[in-house]
Amino acid sequence: MNDRHYEDFHVGQEFRSPGKTFTESEILEFAFKYDPQPFHIDLQAAEASQYGGLIASGWHVMAVAFRLFTMTDALGPASEGAPGIDDLRWHLPVRPGDTVRTVATVEAMRLSASRPDIGLVTIGYRVENQKAETVASMRAVQFMHRRENAHE
Amino acid sequence: MNDRHYEDFHVGQEFRSPGKTFTESEILEFAFKYDPQPFHIDLQAAEASQYGGLIASGWHVMAVAFRLFTMTDALGPASEGAPGIDDLRWHLPVRPGDTVRTVATVEAMRLSASRPDIGLVTIGYRVENQKAETVASMRAVQFMHRRENAHE
Repeated sequence: MNDRHYEDFHVGQEFRSPGKTFTESEILEFAFKYDPQPFHIDLQAAEASQYGGLIASGWHVMAVAFRLFTMTDALGPASEGAPGIDDLRWHLPVRPGDTVRTVATVEAMRLSASRPDIGLVTIGYRVENQKAETVASMRAVQFMHRRENAHE
Repeated sequence: MNDRHYEDFHVGQEFRSPGKTFTESEILEFAFKYDPQPFHIDLQAAEASQYGGLIASGWHVMAVAFRLFTMTDALGPASEGAPGIDDLRWHLPVRPGDTVRTVATVEAMRLSASRPDIGLVTIGYRVENQKAETVASMRAVQFMHRRENAHE
């Protein structure tokens, strides 16, 4: 894993993930476990729905998007995770055969008021498909350790 | 499935799901696939982290929470899904052996301005553990079909 700390981020920095193709069987399997709505688990019902065919659960899209983000090596042992997500939006369906990637951009940075060893990195996430259309987006504040010598 | 439409919701209505116990193996498996950060996939690293032991991926918690919500039968064929999520927060870790349930409360209702067949139901979700502590929360607008005679 990398040695990235708070100091290694800057506003405007972009992390582009590799792509990942969604398959029909993965979509059906994830949704049957976590989001069993007809348009996610039943081909016939999905066809008859307003979506006109099977679409991936939004939770599946975000879980894959986050996995893709971790593959950019943006985080590492200095990450303490994120306390939440803001403004999560699903803009377009993800269908079998679609390939998505995550584009993460550093939007803001600030030091923690209460913990001198921590910095907060606000990251805007955009999930795009093979046509470069944005299928989902969200924002999260990532807690990152500062380098030891930065707060001594 | 049920026949619940927009008209069958009211502000203040509450849906309480059954509980679900998180196991160590599920936590490790989900995170290895979707959120492979050390404190989610490596017992030793998790022990040494600020969390003092393995914790479930926040995405895992929300996916299970949503599945639990679908088990309340609040939705049904009249649901068209949700366009996004607001104010998602992870308040406390979920650890192996913890049992969570979802408590969903109708916070607001309004008719669609553009589609006479649709109503928007704002739902506040609280995920609680076996001690009735809130481990996560979020808010979403659910698109629900109106009964046919309601907009004729």
